[in-house]
Amino acid sequence: MATVAFIGLGVMGLPMAGHLQAAGHSLRLHSRRKGRAAKLLSRPNTQWTDSPADAASGAEMIFICVPDTPDVEQVIAGKQGVIESAAAGSIVIDHSTIAPSATKELGDRLGRNNVWFLDAPVSGGEVGAREGTLSIMCGGDRSAFDRAEPTLRAMGKEITYCGPSGTGQLTKLVNQILVSVTTLGVSEALIFAKKNGLNLDTTMRAVNGGAGSSWQLQRLGPKMISADNRPGFTVDLQQKDLRLVLDASDGSNTSLPATSLVHQLFTAAQAAGHGKDGTQALFTVLEKLASTH
Amino acid sequence: MATVAFIGLGVMGLPMAGHLQAAGHSLRLHSRRKGRAAKLLSRPNTQWTDSPADAASGAEMIFICVPDTPDVEQVIAGKQGVIESAAAGSIVIDHSTIAPSATKELGDRLGRNNVWFLDAPVSGGEVGAREGTLSIMCGGDRSAFDRAEPTLRAMGKEITYCGPSGTGQLTKLVNQILVSVTTLGVSEALIFAKKNGLNLDTTMRAVNGGAGSSWQLQRLGPKMISADNRPGFTVDLQQKDLRLVLDASDGSNTSLPATSLVHQLFTAAQAAGHGKDGTQALFTVLEKLASTH
Repeated sequence: MATVAFIGLGVMGLPMAGHLQAAGHSLRLHSRRKGRAAKLLSRPNTQWTDSPADAASGAEMIFICVPDTPDVEQVIAGKQGVIESAAAGSIVIDHSTIAPSATKELGDRLGRNNVWFLDAPVSGGEVGAREGTLSIMCGGDRSAFDRAEPTLRAMGKEITYCGPSGTGQLTKLVNQILVSVTTLGVSEALIFAKKNGLNLDTTMRAVNGGAGSSWQLQRLGPKMISADNRPGFTVDLQQKDLRLVLDASDGSNTSLPATSLVHQLFTAAQAAGHGKDGTQALFTVLEKLASTH
Repeated sequence: MATVAFIGLGVMGLPMAGHLQAAGHSLRLHSRRKGRAAKLLSRPNTQWTDSPADAASGAEMIFICVPDTPDVEQVIAGKQGVIESAAAGSIVIDHSTIAPSATKELGDRLGRNNVWFLDAPVSGGEVGAREGTLSIMCGGDRSAFDRAEPTLRAMGKEITYCGPSGTGQLTKLVNQILVSVTTLGVSEALIFAKKNGLNLDTTMRAVNGGAGSSWQLQRLGPKMISADNRPGFTVDLQQKDLRLVLDASDGSNTSLPATSLVHQLFTAAQAAGHGKDGTQALFTVLEKLASTH
């Protein structure tokens, strides 16, 4: 088994690093808060490091899972960044969802040091990270992907090589368009049902399984009906991803009217204090629009 | 087995009537064009009739499957309409998708003659009608539904009692909101993928099965990729249904921003000559918006 670094132990990164540990890899960990690592550090072959550069030192693969584009830039190319110590031939694997354009730049910079870079954003949320059933969408050099793939299998069920650097990120953004527009459709369907006096459980049963069915209907529909806004995936994170989508669509002359609309409605959700709620809060926003008081 | 009438032998009605025939019922048929009935008429216990009133005469149940609200009104309450001859205690079952408000009125009129009326719109398209796997969403009197249900089983797999008169239609409209907004999401996701140079088959494989998955992605995604606009369900029919949705949302003070948007984009599809194409033609419309020529 290899020595690998894992940088970023948030709700996604922590369980993902745990799967690498369970698979027998030696871990070099770094995160903003050391406390997050306590449980992992209590097990053998696992070491805390004081910076991304320290984590990357001597690692064959360097995994990163942080919130946004500037965070990844900081971890790789900032002070005491990964680029200062990553060995020639090592592979940096970025699980964060960030701008495809930034991915390409970082890949170029690492490449000048003969360090490989794969973009490998994930889908499946906290549950998928915990259960090791994430979808992982990879872009970058094919031979680097082939080397990394057996290790990625510890964390994901569906691992797809999408093409050159940035295509993993672009594929993740395709996923976020699907997710967010479908969620809006589910919200509108259920608010229409509610305002027209239908029994919502009966309605769900009647439309589920047919041409209107979707993962979002099955998972978020019941939460909308019971006004449970606890997050699977938060409005704030979805908004970050939709900004990446809309930036990339600007850059490619692509018109995305429904994606723009859902971005605006999520802004209304944030304005109403639902930023930390789950994306099903769209239903709450539409309910307010439909209120006659 | 009962004597039943079937009025309207279009792409949906013809195979549905065929299932009733196969189940052993005696059929009294009527449609705008007698030619449609030829095959059914070649089998025993099946009779052509010259008007809706003639078809309904002596039938325990009278099935209707015609395109739009005025057609149903004509069949039931027009010249030589069903109402002239339907026996007290018989049940009129309307499989058409029409305005919920019209449904309630027709139910009231038939009720004054002690004739039951069920709204029973279907989902599942031509394939579902042929294979007898339709979803049937029923509104109306519960005891009438209980009497009709065993007969409906010949045509549908998922048969749901939704509540009082009109709730079957409203539930079908919920389904159409889901279907159409999801189709728009799939169109935007795939045009984004295409314009950003992703391999579309790989992209489908990466996002299918995850949080972005849906019936529409699975069925229409491949058709969009291969530019196959042959209809499962036509843009013109979807537009008719979306008009019913938006009328009902006006009447209930419900704001449906994405549903309104998809209605407008389908109007653009119709303007570009895609009215008789399948709803996946939305992708073609977005592709044109994203064209740099």
